[in-house]
Amino acid sequence: MEKANIESSKHGYVMTGGSGNQSYAKNSSFQKQDTHVYMMSWMQRDVADATKLLIQNAVSEQLNPRNFPGLETFYVADLGCSVGPNTFIAVQNIIDAVKLKYQSSNDKIPEFQVLFNDHVQNDFNTLFKSLPLNREYYASGVPGSFYSNLFPRSSLHFVHTSYSLQWLSCVPKEIITKNKGRTYYFGAGEEVTKAYARQHAADFANFLQARAREIVPGGLMVIVLPSRPNGVSHSRVSFNILHGIFSSTFVDLTKKGMIDEEKVDTFNLPIYHSSPQELEETIKQNGCFSIEKIESLPKITRVDVPHVVSLSIRAITEGLIKEHFGEEILDGLFEHFTNKLVESIKDVESGLAVNLFLLLKRKDEDTTTV
Amino acid sequence: MEKANIESSKHGYVMTGGSGNQSYAKNSSFQKQDTHVYMMSWMQRDVADATKLLIQNAVSEQLNPRNFPGLETFYVADLGCSVGPNTFIAVQNIIDAVKLKYQSSNDKIPEFQVLFNDHVQNDFNTLFKSLPLNREYYASGVPGSFYSNLFPRSSLHFVHTSYSLQWLSCVPKEIITKNKGRTYYFGAGEEVTKAYARQHAADFANFLQARAREIVPGGLMVIVLPSRPNGVSHSRVSFNILHGIFSSTFVDLTKKGMIDEEKVDTFNLPIYHSSPQELEETIKQNGCFSIEKIESLPKITRVDVPHVVSLSIRAITEGLIKEHFGEEILDGLFEHFTNKLVESIKDVESGLAVNLFLLLKRKDEDTTTV
Repeated sequence: MEKANIESSKHGYVMTGGSGNQSYAKNSSFQKQDTHVYMMSWMQRDVADATKLLIQNAVSEQLNPRNFPGLETFYVADLGCSVGPNTFIAVQNIIDAVKLKYQSSNDKIPEFQVLFNDHVQNDFNTLFKSLPLNREYYASGVPGSFYSNLFPRSSLHFVHTSYSLQWLSCVPKEIITKNKGRTYYFGAGEEVTKAYARQHAADFANFLQARAREIVPGGLMVIVLPSRPNGVSHSRVSFNILHGIFSSTFVDLTKKGMIDEEKVDTFNLPIYHSSPQELEETIKQNGCFSIEKIESLPKITRVDVPHVVSLSIRAITEGLIKEHFGEEILDGLFEHFTNKLVESIKDVESGLAVNLFLLLKRKDEDTTTV
Repeated sequence: MEKANIESSKHGYVMTGGSGNQSYAKNSSFQKQDTHVYMMSWMQRDVADATKLLIQNAVSEQLNPRNFPGLETFYVADLGCSVGPNTFIAVQNIIDAVKLKYQSSNDKIPEFQVLFNDHVQNDFNTLFKSLPLNREYYASGVPGSFYSNLFPRSSLHFVHTSYSLQWLSCVPKEIITKNKGRTYYFGAGEEVTKAYARQHAADFANFLQARAREIVPGGLMVIVLPSRPNGVSHSRVSFNILHGIFSSTFVDLTKKGMIDEEKVDTFNLPIYHSSPQELEETIKQNGCFSIEKIESLPKITRVDVPHVVSLSIRAITEGLIKEHFGEEILDGLFEHFTNKLVESIKDVESGLAVNLFLLLKRKDEDTTTV
């Protein structure tokens, strides 16, 4: 297995790089050689399929080339790009849609610059080596947290971020020692859940403030993320049920003496599934964006076999776990997790798996100081 | 040792990445922990010291903020950046000089975007992790050969490239099987040397064409590279004498039966040391740049101990050698090379070590179709 990328919770989290069995690239549903694709990736594939048309419509209806007179280069950013290949498919779809829009409005098609962003610990070497050879855009990698400024003022025309904004910038400080016997907010008291919600709202506010500064007036931003329907309890969300089972796996291992109890008490996954209402509130508070579309993607009805679901969770959490518990617990942990999933995959399937599509447009007037 | 980066000669060459003993970052003269710095790096350090003031003067005298009215972001590119830290020092010097110029002319200081370019096989992960934390610029990595277009049209204001343009894009095809018993043009006949010269001229022409398209009118380009004085024989240049000794090391190893003779006959280093006259000719042919300055840097009089010189050559050639001969020859090869250098370092010292500083300015008028 390749060396996993570890990043401190301070700077958020990145997926396992390289091309080992547990790596994101290897498990991605777009890898043709894969026969078994894992849950997270086919969710993302389904999401990508569903968003493809939505993005084409967004560009067709909401992008106005006249907003960018004499534009020589159209800048597209994908935030939380990982190592591909999903990011390449997403940006190609955006570029195709923009070209079509320029053609249909008889405007001169600009050149394209794509900015691939992820944390500084992301495996950019793999990303760069995987860049499509026949691409018709300039490519560059931008390392850093998207909860801060990453690009010059008014330099972006289209921002895309998929399955990234559920990651918090850090575990909420106030619950680090208060969420005992759990590694997630599933099943925790209101205090813990509210701390997660506050952290997400603060992070999303920072995200919007940074993007408001970077996106030109008339520029678009598409956000896709796993979500919780308005008014629905956290405990009914598939992702949360899954992470709840994962959380109890750690507790089981303490009972077997395989992990120190105190270690589990101080470990928490920095993931939160927000509702459309929560997101809308923060967007309105920010004030720089109009919400052009906010809708749920078609319900995902398939859930993969437990082994593949377990691999999926391993790919996205391994770095964090390794950093906190050490590498030696990984195999035992995920073996036990797979066994638990065999018993309880029906619980995951019975929950709500909702993915949200948001289309925002940068307002013309500077309504806030950014 | 870290895994070396290998790149086929088709795409040129990159230095050994990571942080192993043989790596470029480790051997760089700017690494504070190093007591022994190696020849190539202190040459580059001396070069960096000498160019610092030249770059400041270049900006002060030749950069005119009025050429870029209302500029929000000033784009700086460093081509052949490797993994740092030299690149960070160079771009900081450029940015400081540009800020000073804007201040002194009472123009509003723009934001800065720095584009770090090197081959796709460069270790961008290490580069990104080494980025100065307190930097006052946006940073991005751009993978690809600088002998082709890397950036959108008219998007750069300052281009810097140091100790990179002596690398050819490939070994001249016509000499691959004709330079027998040698791995370099030192000591070869006129036919071989001329093939190297033609390749360099063709590469440099491609380089200029790409930059002419990318640099805005009034934008500056600084090129620093090891050179050969006009009218001086290739055999009198220190770099060439050194590579000549290195070449004969391979031949010695064939006599000992450690390397296959045919392997040596088909291996050639894609490095060429051009004269100011050769460079000027290509610049004039291109027609898009005015030569604002072309001068030799102060003569370097120090040469380091053989062991350190050998390490230096290993750092910059290891990937290519590994690709062609296999990893197993490396230790023996460089041990023998070090021994040879002990006997002949005086020959290297007696040669001419000339570094050239070029300042080009993108002309206002489009004199060629780019």
